[in-house]
Amino acid sequence: MFTYIGKKIAMNKLLLAFSLLLAAGNSTAQSAEILAIRKVRIASEHSWLQQYVSFLSIPNVADDESNIARNAARIMELMQERNIGNVQLLHPVTKGAPPAVYGEVKVPGATKTIAFYAHYDGQPVDSTRWAAGFHPFKPVLIKNAVLHQSNIIPFPEKGQPIEPEWRIVSRGSSDDKGGVLAILLAYEALKQSGQTAGCNIKFFFEGEEEAGSPHLGEILQQHKALLNADIWVICDGPVHQSGSKQISFGVRGDVNMDIVVYGSKRPLHSGHYGNWAPNPALQLSRLLASMKDEQGKVLIKGFYDDVIPLSPAEKKALAAVPKADAQLKKELGFIRNEIPGTDLAESLLLPSLNINGIQSANAGKLAANVIPVQAMATLDLRLVKGNDQQVQQQRVVDHIKAQGFYVTELEPTDAERAQYPKIARVIKQEGYNAQRTSMDLPIAKDIAAAVQKTTAGNLILVPSLGGSLPLFLFEKHLKVNTITVPLANHDNNQHAENENIRLQNFWNGIETMASIMMIK
Amino acid sequence: MFTYIGKKIAMNKLLLAFSLLLAAGNSTAQSAEILAIRKVRIASEHSWLQQYVSFLSIPNVADDESNIARNAARIMELMQERNIGNVQLLHPVTKGAPPAVYGEVKVPGATKTIAFYAHYDGQPVDSTRWAAGFHPFKPVLIKNAVLHQSNIIPFPEKGQPIEPEWRIVSRGSSDDKGGVLAILLAYEALKQSGQTAGCNIKFFFEGEEEAGSPHLGEILQQHKALLNADIWVICDGPVHQSGSKQISFGVRGDVNMDIVVYGSKRPLHSGHYGNWAPNPALQLSRLLASMKDEQGKVLIKGFYDDVIPLSPAEKKALAAVPKADAQLKKELGFIRNEIPGTDLAESLLLPSLNINGIQSANAGKLAANVIPVQAMATLDLRLVKGNDQQVQQQRVVDHIKAQGFYVTELEPTDAERAQYPKIARVIKQEGYNAQRTSMDLPIAKDIAAAVQKTTAGNLILVPSLGGSLPLFLFEKHLKVNTITVPLANHDNNQHAENENIRLQNFWNGIETMASIMMIK
Repeated sequence: MFTYIGKKIAMNKLLLAFSLLLAAGNSTAQSAEILAIRKVRIASEHSWLQQYVSFLSIPNVADDESNIARNAARIMELMQERNIGNVQLLHPVTKGAPPAVYGEVKVPGATKTIAFYAHYDGQPVDSTRWAAGFHPFKPVLIKNAVLHQSNIIPFPEKGQPIEPEWRIVSRGSSDDKGGVLAILLAYEALKQSGQTAGCNIKFFFEGEEEAGSPHLGEILQQHKALLNADIWVICDGPVHQSGSKQISFGVRGDVNMDIVVYGSKRPLHSGHYGNWAPNPALQLSRLLASMKDEQGKVLIKGFYDDVIPLSPAEKKALAAVPKADAQLKKELGFIRNEIPGTDLAESLLLPSLNINGIQSANAGKLAANVIPVQAMATLDLRLVKGNDQQVQQQRVVDHIKAQGFYVTELEPTDAERAQYPKIARVIKQEGYNAQRTSMDLPIAKDIAAAVQKTTAGNLILVPSLGGSLPLFLFEKHLKVNTITVPLANHDNNQHAENENIRLQNFWNGIETMASIMMIK
Repeated sequence: MFTYIGKKIAMNKLLLAFSLLLAAGNSTAQSAEILAIRKVRIASEHSWLQQYVSFLSIPNVADDESNIARNAARIMELMQERNIGNVQLLHPVTKGAPPAVYGEVKVPGATKTIAFYAHYDGQPVDSTRWAAGFHPFKPVLIKNAVLHQSNIIPFPEKGQPIEPEWRIVSRGSSDDKGGVLAILLAYEALKQSGQTAGCNIKFFFEGEEEAGSPHLGEILQQHKALLNADIWVICDGPVHQSGSKQISFGVRGDVNMDIVVYGSKRPLHSGHYGNWAPNPALQLSRLLASMKDEQGKVLIKGFYDDVIPLSPAEKKALAAVPKADAQLKKELGFIRNEIPGTDLAESLLLPSLNINGIQSANAGKLAANVIPVQAMATLDLRLVKGNDQQVQQQRVVDHIKAQGFYVTELEPTDAERAQYPKIARVIKQEGYNAQRTSMDLPIAKDIAAAVQKTTAGNLILVPSLGGSLPLFLFEKHLKVNTITVPLANHDNNQHAENENIRLQNFWNGIETMASIMMIK
């Protein structure tokens, strides 16, 4: 059973505490088991760093079929070298899509099975956007967090010390080849330290997560029996902004929709027709303004109705999440958050209606004295446990109708234009629902306890991330829960140029995964 | 004294009536004087068409200094060939800016002086946007209104008939070299017909109207005495959509402003921060929505306070303007105009607040799941007689403040971001006020009567155009009124590719100008 060490403390104090921890390389061990893992890691750092860099040098964009195959083959080798069993590629039905790489370890007498997930593909790259000296697939080492070529240092020779604040700069370093390798090295460390896994282990490494996991469902469906487990541990994403370890029990769902409002069929001179021709930019503004009040409350009927309230354990966990609000506001340059009186962590547990962007003719230097022909907004609706993506979209549509608009899914015809004074086209995108694993499940408690063992600091338990991942697929196809256990530093430039990983985060991640593998 | 022939008649009837007129080439003469002018024109069509095409072949974009000089020189020649006196270039103080071309005719015993204005520069051109077979400065003749190269016909040989529906396609054909040439040919026709001008005539042809007339004020100021007149006749723009002749007594003023609303300093992931970070697209929508109600009424305090009401003559004229509303709505694809119950002509006599465009991050295919950093709208405020551009802009600023925004003219500083929950940057552009000449002035009545003489159809008297021209400069520097007397067809593609003039409109324009020159 895990306990909460942390209480609500001011962010600055918290950061100070963590700075001290980090300066010591998070070296406060929690148990002999973890110390044994650490000992192996320290002895293996040079060799593991080499393997990491060699793995990162294989380009890994999901649509680069031949390189994706090289990555998959390399992972199979890494598994076979560690005597992991039943190593194989799991291909989806769809031809040509990246396979998942699978392996397993059966532990005699084990009563639980834990599956470890990470993905070996990375975000698309535009190498011209990477800073001078950096390249997505030519990993380099830098000596601190400043992403500048003057910080590049040579890879250390055997015997030279390796500093915890060094970073590797490369696509996939943190998202998510770091996850793949940390899981495999955790298993190696476990064995080298003379310890054994407490549970059966399944390894599953996806090859197209950054393309939106279009075939993950197919693979899970096709290999249901093979992939059965008591819990899936998703090793992806960053730890808390404070540097503290974090595990999260869910993600919000997400679904997008475009709204287009129409005026005249051709752009009109604002002098010759201004005050007379309807202005779609104004109509859209009015429509959007009607959706949310000044206090951040969505005014769409029923928007919050389906939300499943937090459990006592979730509420308690939420209260213990360090408050980064004041510090973040300062960094981001605003003083009032959207729902005054509600902090960041609480806000992320509510469904949201967010305007991604608005476009109507041109503004600023390119503006012309016209009445625009149309105005478009893209919304994303984040969904929490209880929300259904289609129901939530329909509520928005009903709201638009209630504002007097005729709603169509297509470009309005002349006949429709001649019939309805206000027309909105709504283009619904496909999305997915939220997923949230109960913190009260025994296996969830086991995992939290295992991770807590690896750190003297607060372990932050997040009922749900604000962001979205298609974790509902595991629930849907395997009837299994997921818990996300990240390892990367929060400032890792995930999805962008100059992606990087702080070495100590990687080393810590190995300990985290090994500790979970010891769950009995 | 002029009279109103027209009454409110349905648009279709009106169009039918005009179609019949046009089919006859508008040949119904109103007086012997005009018939004499027409006779000269018919005899001169081949020669005048040649001169027109040759004049149009000289490129005339305002910043093309050498070609602008060629145009000015050509106009001086055209004046000298017609024995117009005191021909000269009027240079502004600013070096290198296009000169105006001036000339005059003094009539013994004349008690009035009428100045005729047109401009010889044209809108900037992008020849790649012109349809196949057309080029801005290689004029061609087409046989009807369809702008397609299959309609191109050779220029007629002497003796071959010239059809009234033919069009010349070329930059400047209607805006506004057609005006320059029609004025000069009107004077020639007057003389060739054995008639004389009734008033002293001043010719003034500007060379940078399409660049916004940045030096017109300088020229007027510097040549006050030379440019003194009882009225300035502005020959620019199109006649009524029905094809009917039209004169207008004013223009709206215009002033723009950009409004930028701010959120976080960097784009935020809408999952990790949605519901918490303020969304500037929503804030801007709410702000814009607060400015105008569903009935098209601007809600900004004092917005209509300074409007000088229409005089009885103006009201009467307005009531007589043919209603194009139903036809236009059908053509443009909407059924409800912005101020229900108010027709187009009435709407254009009110100040307007129009959104030119809105831009915030991206919408549609390029949208990302972000919370935008800012949202920008550009507004144009059309001004009517009584409005002051700065007062009207300030009212908008005061309204923004009343919605709780801190208003700044610059990018907000970190200190401002740390102090104010809602920040709007307002960038005020320079504009100009409206101008409106009283319809009750004797000289205004003279001009209306002179134009009415040239047409059997309704002469449409418009108290003010909806669009804007810097006509206030004449009032400011010369203390003189202006009346706009256009000649081009309304579908002339003014300012765009494939600009053209319908030949009959040009011939009619010559008669119009000649008739005005006969005012005693």
